[in-house]
Amino acid sequence: MQDQTKYSAQSYAADPRNDSVKVYVNGEFCPRNEASVSVFDAGFALGDGVWEGMRLINGKLLAIDEHIDRLYSGAASIQINIGLSKDEMIREIYKTTEKNDMHDGAHIRLMLTRGTKKTPNQDPRFALGPPTIVIVAEYKAPNPAIWSKGLKLLTSTIRCSTPDVFDLRLNSHSRLNFIQALLQAINVGCDEALMLDPRGFVASCNSTNFFIVRKGELWTSTGLYNFNGITRKKIIKLFKEKVGTVREVDFTLAETYSADEAFVTGTLGGVTPVTSIDGRAIGKGLPGKVTTKISDIYKEFIYS
Amino acid sequence: MQDQTKYSAQSYAADPRNDSVKVYVNGEFCPRNEASVSVFDAGFALGDGVWEGMRLINGKLLAIDEHIDRLYSGAASIQINIGLSKDEMIREIYKTTEKNDMHDGAHIRLMLTRGTKKTPNQDPRFALGPPTIVIVAEYKAPNPAIWSKGLKLLTSTIRCSTPDVFDLRLNSHSRLNFIQALLQAINVGCDEALMLDPRGFVASCNSTNFFIVRKGELWTSTGLYNFNGITRKKIIKLFKEKVGTVREVDFTLAETYSADEAFVTGTLGGVTPVTSIDGRAIGKGLPGKVTTKISDIYKEFIYS
Amino acid sequence: MQDQTKYSAQSYAADPRNDSVKVYVNGEFCPRNEASVSVFDAGFALGDGVWEGMRLINGKLLAIDEHIDRLYSGAASIQINIGLSKDEMIREIYKTTEKNDMHDGAHIRLMLTRGTKKTPNQDPRFALGPPTIVIVAEYKAPNPAIWSKGLKLLTSTIRCSTPDVFDLRLNSHSRLNFIQALLQAINVGCDEALMLDPRGFVASCNSTNFFIVRKGELWTSTGLYNFNGITRKKIIKLFKEKVGTVREVDFTLAETYSADEAFVTGTLGGVTPVTSIDGRAIGKGLPGKVTTKISDIYKEFIYS
Amino acid sequence: MQDQTKYSAQSYAADPRNDSVKVYVNGEFCPRNEASVSVFDAGFALGDGVWEGMRLINGKLLAIDEHIDRLYSGAASIQINIGLSKDEMIREIYKTTEKNDMHDGAHIRLMLTRGTKKTPNQDPRFALGPPTIVIVAEYKAPNPAIWSKGLKLLTSTIRCSTPDVFDLRLNSHSRLNFIQALLQAINVGCDEALMLDPRGFVASCNSTNFFIVRKGELWTSTGLYNFNGITRKKIIKLFKEKVGTVREVDFTLAETYSADEAFVTGTLGGVTPVTSIDGRAIGKGLPGKVTTKISDIYKEFIYS
Amino acid sequence: MQDQTKYSAQSYAADPRNDSVKVYVNGEFCPRNEASVSVFDAGFALGDGVWEGMRLINGKLLAIDEHIDRLYSGAASIQINIGLSKDEMIREIYKTTEKNDMHDGAHIRLMLTRGTKKTPNQDPRFALGPPTIVIVAEYKAPNPAIWSKGLKLLTSTIRCSTPDVFDLRLNSHSRLNFIQALLQAINVGCDEALMLDPRGFVASCNSTNFFIVRKGELWTSTGLYNFNGITRKKIIKLFKEKVGTVREVDFTLAETYSADEAFVTGTLGGVTPVTSIDGRAIGKGLPGKVTTKISDIYKEFIYS
Amino acid sequence: MQDQTKYSAQSYAADPRNDSVKVYVNGEFCPRNEASVSVFDAGFALGDGVWEGMRLINGKLLAIDEHIDRLYSGAASIQINIGLSKDEMIREIYKTTEKNDMHDGAHIRLMLTRGTKKTPNQDPRFALGPPTIVIVAEYKAPNPAIWSKGLKLLTSTIRCSTPDVFDLRLNSHSRLNFIQALLQAINVGCDEALMLDPRGFVASCNSTNFFIVRKGELWTSTGLYNFNGITRKKIIKLFKEKVGTVREVDFTLAETYSADEAFVTGTLGGVTPVTSIDGRAIGKGLPGKVTTKISDIYKEFIYS
Repeated sequence: MQDQTKYSAQSYAADPRNDSVKVYVNGEFCPRNEASVSVFDAGFALGDGVWEGMRLINGKLLAIDEHIDRLYSGAASIQINIGLSKDEMIREIYKTTEKNDMHDGAHIRLMLTRGTKKTPNQDPRFALGPPTIVIVAEYKAPNPAIWSKGLKLLTSTIRCSTPDVFDLRLNSHSRLNFIQALLQAINVGCDEALMLDPRGFVASCNSTNFFIVRKGELWTSTGLYNFNGITRKKIIKLFKEKVGTVREVDFTLAETYSADEAFVTGTLGGVTPVTSIDGRAIGKGLPGKVTTKISDIYKEFIYS
Repeated sequence: MQDQTKYSAQSYAADPRNDSVKVYVNGEFCPRNEASVSVFDAGFALGDGVWEGMRLINGKLLAIDEHIDRLYSGAASIQINIGLSKDEMIREIYKTTEKNDMHDGAHIRLMLTRGTKKTPNQDPRFALGPPTIVIVAEYKAPNPAIWSKGLKLLTSTIRCSTPDVFDLRLNSHSRLNFIQALLQAINVGCDEALMLDPRGFVASCNSTNFFIVRKGELWTSTGLYNFNGITRKKIIKLFKEKVGTVREVDFTLAETYSADEAFVTGTLGGVTPVTSIDGRAIGKGLPGKVTTKISDIYKEFIYS
Repeated sequence: MQDQTKYSAQSYAADPRNDSVKVYVNGEFCPRNEASVSVFDAGFALGDGVWEGMRLINGKLLAIDEHIDRLYSGAASIQINIGLSKDEMIREIYKTTEKNDMHDGAHIRLMLTRGTKKTPNQDPRFALGPPTIVIVAEYKAPNPAIWSKGLKLLTSTIRCSTPDVFDLRLNSHSRLNFIQALLQAINVGCDEALMLDPRGFVASCNSTNFFIVRKGELWTSTGLYNFNGITRKKIIKLFKEKVGTVREVDFTLAETYSADEAFVTGTLGGVTPVTSIDGRAIGKGLPGKVTTKISDIYKEFIYS
Repeated sequence: MQDQTKYSAQSYAADPRNDSVKVYVNGEFCPRNEASVSVFDAGFALGDGVWEGMRLINGKLLAIDEHIDRLYSGAASIQINIGLSKDEMIREIYKTTEKNDMHDGAHIRLMLTRGTKKTPNQDPRFALGPPTIVIVAEYKAPNPAIWSKGLKLLTSTIRCSTPDVFDLRLNSHSRLNFIQALLQAINVGCDEALMLDPRGFVASCNSTNFFIVRKGELWTSTGLYNFNGITRKKIIKLFKEKVGTVREVDFTLAETYSADEAFVTGTLGGVTPVTSIDGRAIGKGLPGKVTTKISDIYKEFIYS
Repeated sequence: MQDQTKYSAQSYAADPRNDSVKVYVNGEFCPRNEASVSVFDAGFALGDGVWEGMRLINGKLLAIDEHIDRLYSGAASIQINIGLSKDEMIREIYKTTEKNDMHDGAHIRLMLTRGTKKTPNQDPRFALGPPTIVIVAEYKAPNPAIWSKGLKLLTSTIRCSTPDVFDLRLNSHSRLNFIQALLQAINVGCDEALMLDPRGFVASCNSTNFFIVRKGELWTSTGLYNFNGITRKKIIKLFKEKVGTVREVDFTLAETYSADEAFVTGTLGGVTPVTSIDGRAIGKGLPGKVTTKISDIYKEFIYS
Repeated sequence: MQDQTKYSAQSYAADPRNDSVKVYVNGEFCPRNEASVSVFDAGFALGDGVWEGMRLINGKLLAIDEHIDRLYSGAASIQINIGLSKDEMIREIYKTTEKNDMHDGAHIRLMLTRGTKKTPNQDPRFALGPPTIVIVAEYKAPNPAIWSKGLKLLTSTIRCSTPDVFDLRLNSHSRLNFIQALLQAINVGCDEALMLDPRGFVASCNSTNFFIVRKGELWTSTGLYNFNGITRKKIIKLFKEKVGTVREVDFTLAETYSADEAFVTGTLGGVTPVTSIDGRAIGKGLPGKVTTKISDIYKEFIYS
């Protein structure tokens, strides 16, 4: 399916430097083709881990404290003992970007799992020792094609979960339900899946958070059934400061179809415009003015 | 936590031969310590795969057709193209047991993921090529200690999911919600988690299916919110043929607390007795007569 | 949108005789262009009515007793006093087909509303007098194109309702939620919408009932959240008698995607094959063998 | 049932001038008895349309921009292309009141449906051409009897719907579920139905929005499961400005039974007092002081 | 409210002998006016107990084993240690009827609570000693007036609970939710409340189980959300043996309104006809033929 | 079980003066061993009543107006006519403390039930006369042991109810579901049960309200699914005035496990620290600083 990836919410411009990046695996650096984990790793066998996506901008990791807090909080909630202090972890990340001589435009994925197990079963008591820590740093500039065309969303029949089934605040390695939602979108020619909450209100996309613009106001869901997004929080803050009203509310698909504009947010893409949902053009079917404005404000913020 | 594993629902007698097993990874065999997958593998980064647990008894894979059917059906449902026919896959499994000179008492875990990705993101369109196939065969005899003592269950607050969130019929690598349920049980000194369905009826354990015995009848949940278990189906069939009435019904925790006996079923353990739930003894707090009987019948069946 | 109707679940072969049919309106016959109801009619203003679709085969109304029972039961449940006995109503229908000199291949839609109101408001106490009865008879032969290609379904995000919101057993004039589901399907190039029940299991299509074939068995939903279909009941009965096992069960989208065949049933189309769902081919992406067989059996039944 | 209508939430004083009003139907004016639509109209056959109720006060349509916005937004959400600009539509409404020489005290119902269809089926692709537009203007002064006695409500067992079943923000022609709720109320001698949301909190009446007064505060539901009412919004705004605290909250039947006062709001009646619910007097069983006050403020507002 | 009790589902013919019955309280007999429990009793302060209603017919306690089983199972589920064997308990009941010289036509209510507490709080660890056992035996012949008129039901907005909130199989002293449902019925002039399950299907009455007759078949709910009734089970068994088809199914209010007959069952009244629901006559608004038949069969059974 | 009560959320220091308190029963005072109600009392047989817990501090009943308001509002909602004005009721309470010569450190439980019934059935129309009023005043100083150790909570599988099942705002005598939740906690060695709402968010404890501290902010649930606590409201008010931000929000178990501190509130204990939940230490597993601070503020408030 590879050629369709140009219009993924996770797309990025191809960059040949990525072929030779060194990957951090439990303190060691390896060429990307040799970076590996045991088949007994809890991440591989069970999706038993948490991760963070981060950006390196002008030599600095953007919002690093928020990312590290979320990582440690997630690890604590699933009872993985990281074995490094937060500061030590930040140093390992910088070590990785430095090892790759990266200074800007890099996207880092840090993956933390329960480590190698005695046998590939579900029981965490079979973990043998320390967790697995992998840090992948790659050059990823958001794909400009997306701004000319915008994302096409399909509302999936897969719903966001209640916290007694799976707490969406947890940035976990168990992502198959989101992949299934995305597959529904891809199968009918769309790029990303929009997802409803258990009551049928609009909640989240499969890998990004979702916003609409109505009469100049910015609307997004309440946080109960969407990702605990760091970019999302920043966009809300910046919009309030510099543009106008933000409402964190329950809203419906009908209100989404008739929105003036729509966009998604994520660490990699920042603000990405949405131009159609369920085969219907949003607004004029082009990236909207308010979307462009908040995107510019966000870019200015991250480069300042 | 390792020493507590004796009373896991997934426990087995230690066997030194397991130290030197060869693991099948994409057609190659490697010593267990060297068996690895890329950190870019969709299984590792996302829990994006399906698996099967199987038993080798007297040189034969037990219920191999049912296992392979479930594997292929699961792979189809998440759109992974395996690239091998069912017969070819069965041959790869036997090749693995033969490579290890195993003839009996082995447990095999076959793991199938969407393979290596261009970058560790959620989008399946970034998969680079064929899926990853890993086959781990180990000697696992159910731990006899469990029959003297029985499992202690705790009913978790984590609920089994509806199919619009995650279809439990899918034997996936995204298992973190079950691990969280099990952690609740472990944290208060129990061995396995019992789980309720979204309406509050008894549904499943975190890695096994659940049965109670009331007045000689065997009760188990309806199949809507529990695992699509092959051992479960066989137990139901054998009980009907050789013992008495089986009811696949919605039942409550109160009916469970006052049951005469309880047990769980799984590929590895077959029938495993449950002796307490939520700190309350079930029946006399010892493995029950009917449990022992159906366990014997099942053992006879698999060795015949 | 008109040209796309060839592949609607409600499509039929064009027939010039329909241009001159006479429509029954409260006991009078009018040319179709003049057949009208007051803008104060409860049907027009509020969807306050019930209807039946029926077929005339070889001079006889198929399953007329079931249709009339359902009509009268529906009218009673919303407290519309029809003012005609069941036999009288049947005579009015035959009067309509005779007036149009129809003997075979006709489809009749009988619409019954709370009648003209004093003012167009919601309150049934403002109804002025007798209900409105409209009978439209048209020549409608199922469109053969559908058998070469099959229907393409999209699973809608609109869910079937619980009976405390709207009882699906009621064949009502308030159909906008189903139209919205169908619009989602049309907007991404599909023909009919598949709908889930409130728990996420597969329930119904927007205007037809839904069946899958798995390993030779026929599966359909339980009746709690789908239409109380007369064709559906007949298909279940005929399949049991002449083909094999029918299971009225809760099943999931994943089980639907991996089904061998799928079809829908309705009064107009009888059995209509489904060849793709959510962009995925069902079976080989062609009308299936079992579908063809039960369709033939049904046709034989209705013409016998 | 007609004589009971005096105490409907939709009641109005009889006015002989209504016998001779001219009704607007697709640009033409006809006497009320001749105003009709085709039996093939999507509104009649399927409840496939949206409507607005408006008031003419001192020659002006009250809150006309809000009404027109809601109409166009609703039409867009069900994909009906109106074919007139908003200004043109407003002119058609004034044309209707002028044609009837109305200057004050008129209530207008504008009904917009998907228009005439090729055949009376559910599929919107069978619509033949432009939508149907009907404008009914009548003299409707709220019935003074209601202020001496107040409305008697019954809490219906019919629940307000979630937006994945039917979005209550849509002012649609598919109203049968609300009529069923109202029938329950009428059958035990009440005037209007109170309805709960899916979780059991108080949400809405069948044709009006619902408010209670507790210790001088005004409470009403959150907007998630009640009508998107224009009068409701105005009452909330006026109360905040001129009286005191308004809380848009989830509240329970018990809190409603023990409220000091209760009332409903709608375009036709403005503020209408509620004096009993489920056979229990609210407050002293008479229209309350705060209710009278906000009603007076509202009347003053609309006549200013 | 006392005079209305003639048409309660729990009504009975007045009998002066009841004035002088002796009540069993923890092994002692007292005149009814002196029969008391401590204000520190867990039953009084918290509804912390279970009870049984039983009938004495021709010197024998009807279905005594089922009643005692249910009592002991309920006590076990809330962890009250009764301190008597089942046989001993049966002897205490007979001792009570003998003490009162009762041989026929008596209704016995056995109440078992957690006993006196150190202080009136919720925590069961504050119970001081043995449970409280109270046995009240009274002459209660079903009120014949009910057969001439039938019960009038109102469907309450109070729903039957899921087992994760309160397991309806438990015959407990915490009955306030049922009393609230009944109050809604009484307040609008009805006799007993009909209750829906969490999904909106018909489940139970507030103190009895509910049945409808449709086309000669007997329908009742599935048992998931209604009382675990001993009379209910017997009626189902007798109907199957002597009359015809019984369906334990999910059915709707619409199907109830259009039923041919309806009745309720309970220990005291046996079979009691229902003639109206929500202000609508059921069938002809009189006790039905099938109801009378199964009532006769049941009476014959209990007196045989 | 009595010896475990030291660590109940409802524990208090033993006080020999309690042995000789006089209890108020319907206007009379009796020694505690003689204080009794009829076995026909609606409270004993059915949990049909409401209660209040109050504290006497320095001769004054703390927050007496709020308690009396809640009592009268609850009684009204279940239609018990108390027969005393609020002022008269307050005098009866003071009469009780004076009778016992209590001036400080007393805890009063006022219990109000529907009174003696003609027969022990569910129907409120069988109540014979005035309600039963019982006032128990005892010396209860919070147990200091709890501050050294803190409460251990277990999250129960019993959920808080929706208001259409049982309105948690009602302080009722039907408490068995909460007792069942607490039994689950006790059975695995914990002290009080934490309970989730129907969607899986954290709601309440079985007899107290629940708070967490995260980064200095105080979080508690929204009030929809927890007790309408008077202490809770006061703590929220005091925290806002004197400490910092309070958020009444939906939060999850994961956010609870990773909280810095946790505590519960109730009339008896005021603020009681929580040190572990589900076997996991909260914060450092000791009463927290913020908890201590708000507890001190609250104590200062009640003694000022």
